[in-house]
Amino acid sequence: MYDITENKIRNRFIKFLRNLGCLRVQKSVFLGEVSEIVLETIEYEISNIIDLASDSIYIFPISKREYRDSIFMDKRQIQNILEMSAIIL
Amino acid sequence: MYDITENKIRNRFIKFLRNLGCLRVQKSVFLGEVSEIVLETIEYEISNIIDLASDSIYIFPISKREYRDSIFMDKRQIQNILEMSAIIL
Repeated sequence: MYDITENKIRNRFIKFLRNLGCLRVQKSVFLGEVSEIVLETIEYEISNIIDLASDSIYIFPISKREYRDSIFMDKRQIQNILEMSAIIL
Repeated sequence: MYDITENKIRNRFIKFLRNLGCLRVQKSVFLGEVSEIVLETIEYEISNIIDLASDSIYIFPISKREYRDSIFMDKRQIQNILEMSAIIL
């Protein structure tokens, strides 16, 4: 989840997350399965490019069990979510 | 996490979440500790008022352990997050 003011930085981060295979479920929210090492890479990469005075990033690790209990009310993305769920579960 | 088109419905949902003690961490993202019963109430209440053809809601349950591993990069909300973390942990 992110709130990044500058277009160039935001677009770079979106591209970075897409290259990792993450799914954009909302304008500023991505969902994806990444290893601990990749998670550390994301944290390192993004902390070097955002401006914390104006931007924010939230990364919530979710276990497979919690992911199963997640609630998705979304007709438009349901196909993508099913595909992502098949990868994650 | 929500994407609700109609202002009246969106504002009603925001008020509902705030009354539950949830913290608004981003424009369309709330963070909070709620019981299973309240979670079911949220799911029931919201499914009756949103239009799934245009709106979407995502609810991700996160365990306390995962919450501790969460990454918050956000200078502006840090005080609120610390207060919310004190409640959750």
